[in-house]
Amino acid sequence: MTTIEVKTRIKQYQIKIVADGLQQLGSLVTAVWQPSQVAVVTDSNVGVHYAQLVTDELTAAGFKVLVLTIPAGESSKSWQQVQLLIEQLSAAHFSRSDGILALGGGVVGDLAGFVASIYMRGIGLIQVPTSLLAQVDSSVGGKTAIDLPTGKNLVGSFYQPDLVIIDPTTLTTLPPRMLAEGYGEVVKCAALVGGDFWQALQPISGVAAILPAAPALIAASVAFKAQIVMADEQEQGQRQRLNLGHTIGHAVELLANGQLMHGEAVAIGLVQVCRLFAAHDLAPASLVTTIKSRLMAVGLPTELPTELPAVSQQAVVAVMQHDKKVHGAALTWVYLTAIGQPQLFPVAIKDLNDWLATLW
Amino acid sequence: MTTIEVKTRIKQYQIKIVADGLQQLGSLVTAVWQPSQVAVVTDSNVGVHYAQLVTDELTAAGFKVLVLTIPAGESSKSWQQVQLLIEQLSAAHFSRSDGILALGGGVVGDLAGFVASIYMRGIGLIQVPTSLLAQVDSSVGGKTAIDLPTGKNLVGSFYQPDLVIIDPTTLTTLPPRMLAEGYGEVVKCAALVGGDFWQALQPISGVAAILPAAPALIAASVAFKAQIVMADEQEQGQRQRLNLGHTIGHAVELLANGQLMHGEAVAIGLVQVCRLFAAHDLAPASLVTTIKSRLMAVGLPTELPTELPAVSQQAVVAVMQHDKKVHGAALTWVYLTAIGQPQLFPVAIKDLNDWLATLW
Repeated sequence: MTTIEVKTRIKQYQIKIVADGLQQLGSLVTAVWQPSQVAVVTDSNVGVHYAQLVTDELTAAGFKVLVLTIPAGESSKSWQQVQLLIEQLSAAHFSRSDGILALGGGVVGDLAGFVASIYMRGIGLIQVPTSLLAQVDSSVGGKTAIDLPTGKNLVGSFYQPDLVIIDPTTLTTLPPRMLAEGYGEVVKCAALVGGDFWQALQPISGVAAILPAAPALIAASVAFKAQIVMADEQEQGQRQRLNLGHTIGHAVELLANGQLMHGEAVAIGLVQVCRLFAAHDLAPASLVTTIKSRLMAVGLPTELPTELPAVSQQAVVAVMQHDKKVHGAALTWVYLTAIGQPQLFPVAIKDLNDWLATLW
Repeated sequence: MTTIEVKTRIKQYQIKIVADGLQQLGSLVTAVWQPSQVAVVTDSNVGVHYAQLVTDELTAAGFKVLVLTIPAGESSKSWQQVQLLIEQLSAAHFSRSDGILALGGGVVGDLAGFVASIYMRGIGLIQVPTSLLAQVDSSVGGKTAIDLPTGKNLVGSFYQPDLVIIDPTTLTTLPPRMLAEGYGEVVKCAALVGGDFWQALQPISGVAAILPAAPALIAASVAFKAQIVMADEQEQGQRQRLNLGHTIGHAVELLANGQLMHGEAVAIGLVQVCRLFAAHDLAPASLVTTIKSRLMAVGLPTELPTELPAVSQQAVVAVMQHDKKVHGAALTWVYLTAIGQPQLFPVAIKDLNDWLATLW
């Protein structure tokens, strides 16, 4: 078991990376919660595999369990699902001493986390991410969100869980495409950190190689993210570095309208931002190849998808101009001057079109 | 000008009680915000009086102003209004460097505060409460909320504003019934504090006497609340004292379904909780008369309204059993052993019916 301590201004909690963690869920949860009601929020894909095990574990530990299953997919990050979940909690007389356990990928974590943050102004939350992306990405940082037609994650909160339990064994039931997706986020973290972490990626020459390496890669990614988040809880400064690849990535994801997964869109964004800064002579062109090869090794996309006409260069620029990372009149890019060397670079919104013209 | 400093773990801000504060709004806001976009959220009653003045003041100070007017009344504390406001902010391209100024009573403050707390995971918020109740109650403590059919304030957040501006001059346009309502909350604060604050209420023999006394009464109420909130930001312990009169009051308000105002329901709850604890020999019976006389002086109700059959004793008990202040299996009452002497007293939910039988 690897334990990573997260200390924020509001609270202190642990992220535990435990092989077969679901089989020990009762005792892990009992360490932070008194017996009470627990709503296990899961989705139609993950619930099939793990809802019964989790329910049995929690029940044996003295908790009263209510399983709430949402449809799998990004479209569940909606007002409608928020309202539905809250009605179900209220109908089951959930009080402030009860809690929500989010069992699933990023959609479940974002949605259930947001619901936990606003039901009765905040009830207990335990995150049990089951996808590689959620394990390395959304499980750290306390970001919760739902989507609006005008943009992803436009509504949400910063809300820290009481505990995060990562069981890498759950990755065995993950479809290969989702494993690769999460690995894209690992590549992003390793590119920001450099050193041994980056070196550890070199043997990963296909999706099958991810699984045995997963516990170490998750631990390295989570430790890095936790350190950044502790230094910058509300995303004012250096936490922006984690947005590497996300400026273009978010726009690509939105325009692909479900045809690309988040990690796939970020993989494209990662390579494109390297190319962009190389074109402006602010970064070496070799970085493009270096990063691209790690992503292509597991079959991740790295270029704008020509098979999706909606993801045009013009459309990407238009979406970026409305990007939520816009602070006033400038958009702050994160780029690399070398592996392990991230930098920030603001570009005025009015100059964005010209600035990107060198890229495409 | 009276300035009260509020220091929470997350942030520090000021509550300024300023006669003709709206006429100085530009300079007051400029002290905490850089020029940016400001959404002035107000309601159909308050906007008529003050939206133009506020817009002119902010515009002159360099802000770009968007006025968003909601229908007056508790029914605006709804999912529907939250979604509508957020769509309007998104359509106007509000970013994290923009903010919301809540101009109105408790409904506006609760709704606009909640929206500010979740739009892009939180944008700037300035509260400008214009009703006496909002000035003494909801402006301090960072509580935001909307209602669900199953209960008031069931969804919300703790979210601290950047500044609170209280202009007692706005009370001149407040209907007498709302002035009396807010005074009920002042009586609650004074009953908790005792001493000079309680003595200051003795000359208030009618609604007309509230207005000249308002600046001092608001300052005393706000200073008291700020002190409690600083000691107990997340409402775990002593902040519960502020719930004096609210356990029965909330249930009465819910059942009255808009026929009673919040402060009126709390006035009833205040007298009833004194009577309840006197009946259990835990408090002197004279307190009932002492408090009742202060409330009746301005025409506030103090007994269950016989003209509203829905507000029956049985219904009140049923609603309390589902009250959000229920922590697990017990409900914590706040009562007084004397003016200025609040106490907490837990009663198991299963015993609640018997426990109230002595009252009615």
